[in-house]
Amino acid sequence: MSPTPVLRQLTDIDDLDRATALALLDRAQALREVAGGRAPALDTLAGRTVVNLFFENSTRTRVSFALAARRLGAEVVDFHAHTSSTAKGETLLDTWRTLHAMGTDAFVVRHADDDAVAALAAAIGPDVPLVNAGSGRRAHPTQALLDALTMRQCLGDWSGLTVTVVGDIRHSRVARSNLKLLRLLGVGALRVAAPAALHADDLDDPAVQRFEQLEPALAGADVVMALRVQHERMAQGGSPDPAAFHADWGLTTARLARAAPHAIVLHPGPINRGVEIASEVADGPRSMILAQVGNGVAVRMAVLEALLAPAPR
Amino acid sequence: MSPTPVLRQLTDIDDLDRATALALLDRAQALREVAGGRAPALDTLAGRTVVNLFFENSTRTRVSFALAARRLGAEVVDFHAHTSSTAKGETLLDTWRTLHAMGTDAFVVRHADDDAVAALAAAIGPDVPLVNAGSGRRAHPTQALLDALTMRQCLGDWSGLTVTVVGDIRHSRVARSNLKLLRLLGVGALRVAAPAALHADDLDDPAVQRFEQLEPALAGADVVMALRVQHERMAQGGSPDPAAFHADWGLTTARLARAAPHAIVLHPGPINRGVEIASEVADGPRSMILAQVGNGVAVRMAVLEALLAPAPR
Amino acid sequence: MSPTPVLRQLTDIDDLDRATALALLDRAQALREVAGGRAPALDTLAGRTVVNLFFENSTRTRVSFALAARRLGAEVVDFHAHTSSTAKGETLLDTWRTLHAMGTDAFVVRHADDDAVAALAAAIGPDVPLVNAGSGRRAHPTQALLDALTMRQCLGDWSGLTVTVVGDIRHSRVARSNLKLLRLLGVGALRVAAPAALHADDLDDPAVQRFEQLEPALAGADVVMALRVQHERMAQGGSPDPAAFHADWGLTTARLARAAPHAIVLHPGPINRGVEIASEVADGPRSMILAQVGNGVAVRMAVLEALLAPAPR
Repeated sequence: MSPTPVLRQLTDIDDLDRATALALLDRAQALREVAGGRAPALDTLAGRTVVNLFFENSTRTRVSFALAARRLGAEVVDFHAHTSSTAKGETLLDTWRTLHAMGTDAFVVRHADDDAVAALAAAIGPDVPLVNAGSGRRAHPTQALLDALTMRQCLGDWSGLTVTVVGDIRHSRVARSNLKLLRLLGVGALRVAAPAALHADDLDDPAVQRFEQLEPALAGADVVMALRVQHERMAQGGSPDPAAFHADWGLTTARLARAAPHAIVLHPGPINRGVEIASEVADGPRSMILAQVGNGVAVRMAVLEALLAPAPR
Repeated sequence: MSPTPVLRQLTDIDDLDRATALALLDRAQALREVAGGRAPALDTLAGRTVVNLFFENSTRTRVSFALAARRLGAEVVDFHAHTSSTAKGETLLDTWRTLHAMGTDAFVVRHADDDAVAALAAAIGPDVPLVNAGSGRRAHPTQALLDALTMRQCLGDWSGLTVTVVGDIRHSRVARSNLKLLRLLGVGALRVAAPAALHADDLDDPAVQRFEQLEPALAGADVVMALRVQHERMAQGGSPDPAAFHADWGLTTARLARAAPHAIVLHPGPINRGVEIASEVADGPRSMILAQVGNGVAVRMAVLEALLAPAPR
Repeated sequence: MSPTPVLRQLTDIDDLDRATALALLDRAQALREVAGGRAPALDTLAGRTVVNLFFENSTRTRVSFALAARRLGAEVVDFHAHTSSTAKGETLLDTWRTLHAMGTDAFVVRHADDDAVAALAAAIGPDVPLVNAGSGRRAHPTQALLDALTMRQCLGDWSGLTVTVVGDIRHSRVARSNLKLLRLLGVGALRVAAPAALHADDLDDPAVQRFEQLEPALAGADVVMALRVQHERMAQGGSPDPAAFHADWGLTTARLARAAPHAIVLHPGPINRGVEIASEVADGPRSMILAQVGNGVAVRMAVLEALLAPAPR
């Protein structure tokens, strides 16, 4: 199998250089059978305890990390903070301090605030294993890794690919982490497509082509990544009417005909059927959505291994 | 020990033939010491992951299935959907697809809708291990199995037994699954007793004797099964006043004097003391309520074993 | 290592004699490396199941007990009762009966009512392993044990120590259990300091010196224990304004100058920064708050071991 890279924290794609990103992806690829429960679990992390420290609900991501930890032999502790009143920066740090003082080893943190995970990482120092499981609109690095792994499995090296990200770019940590990682990996071309109100100024970049219409953004694309319409984050941008959004921006088979013949469709889930994606596409042959889910466990295994690997000599 | 039957799904008693039902009960009987924590856990399901997919709160049933899975060596993942907005059929299927794509092996599903579990089973196909842990008013097959096991332990074969089910028949999945299973097992006589508003037309059957008064229904009964008054399901039927219900329909020692001298009392729990059952009965010598709970873990072990057993050659 | 004491229930410090208390503390001290995840987990309780039966939210204490149980090789089942309507005494007993009937072995119980845990212990009899994880304002015995252990680690035997407990004495189970245990252990001197409205008449005792001003209570103290201001329990006493409380009663570096030069500061957590304790103190060199957390896991391991130890011959 591929060697385990060493990486103490993954708060954002910025924590990765190209070599480490590739090493994580290679290791995840090697771990796929174990991740999928088709090969026996490992005991690499036996005796270690991973804490799921979730300040925002996400059963799917929590379960994905929990399965990843257990399939490496680690114990898992779930800590849910249900109310945003306990989700202030200082309290997050005190919560972490308390759980760390109980002899736990690594922290998987999700938080609704953009900066909460980075602020926690800064406060606790660089030596404590920590991975960002989604922070506000800012970052979701393991999602980007699993997306990149899925692209490589289906289409080979990223250098020849045109990737189009469609939908609510403004509120999307998935889009932000994907754009960073794909540039790091040397993707061929990057496009973002959204109605004007759902574009994000912080993503203006000469390397990223911006579209305000869907059809031209899909032309010849190898990868089409639909984003979840996140009603819960749309206070500022105005919540689009689901039917109207689907009419203009929903991924349908007809629209996908403009993409490359071998194009794949990705979505970070959970999907809103009939809003950003038609069921015919979600359930169709181009959809790699469930492959993404399986790769998520493998990528998280690779990251947890790296976080808790012995220090290099 | 008894051999492990093979059964990929248990959504309703209709999935069982008489031989399989008996094989499950025999296997559960053989597993009782392990189920009760008095013998070491098995490793039959080592490396397998069982998902508790609960769209309706039920800590008791969830814990019972979790202990059953762990005592067979399986890992358990809990998935709670707290809001009914996520409990729509299509989303249930997508939730299942996501969890299955993470490499999980068997699904224990509870849902407030009558048809949700059957619809899920139809959608995912017959080869994915799935057990219904309670669906609306429709079915709760493992409850019926544990009830039948408790009857046989106390009173022997069902063919000589008169079983009276008392209370809120209309809203009761426990009643529906019990009537089906007891007929399959060849019970001597079946009676249902309830006020007219709490009877269920779908249970009209020549094999089931219907009573609108409690006392005659108890006469000579070997088994008296009290049902929980389910205020939360009574929107249609009108919620009875607890004291009035107890006055007319509560199981008391005096009323039980009409049953057979060796009669046992069952209840699926949690009990409403002083409503459908008097404390003197719940805590009295005829009560097998806690034996039912213990048998529940054994029955669920037998079912999970059957669901995940190797395919017969 | 120290031998394992035998103790079937710990509902209050009254369940302990001095020898047993010392034996638990010695055992906890011996277990510290395992408790902190720095030595491999034990298998002392392999095959046993510990139930966290929490009728009041407390993620920290729940996780501490769960880690303690797992590091002894036990399985852990979490049972949360979210609504106070299910938290009535009789239902608590029925809930316990059900979980016990599933073949579980020991019960960790937290409840908002003062008497709930003691009432449960009385109802189930003295032979069922049970530990109080906090009951109303009445008792929190494992907290007192971890506090006493922390004092001994830092300052040696309790006989020479002056311990000052500061803050919301009236509503504090931590204060009540600490005063009982420290008297049992033969502490040098005990002081309680609070505004008049937050003193508790039931703690009037010639052995405890009462102060209504902070500064004289701190003079020469070896241990200063700040209590959490518990807004949620203050309906009767009137909730103090946080800033006003801090001005008069907050632990600051300046005020702590009156304590002994080697004085340590304890707090049961979670802390309200800027209310009962200033950040400069909580994060300062006198603070043993995180050492308390670590000792909590060790103390709970010692207690669970004692509860589930084989009966002496």
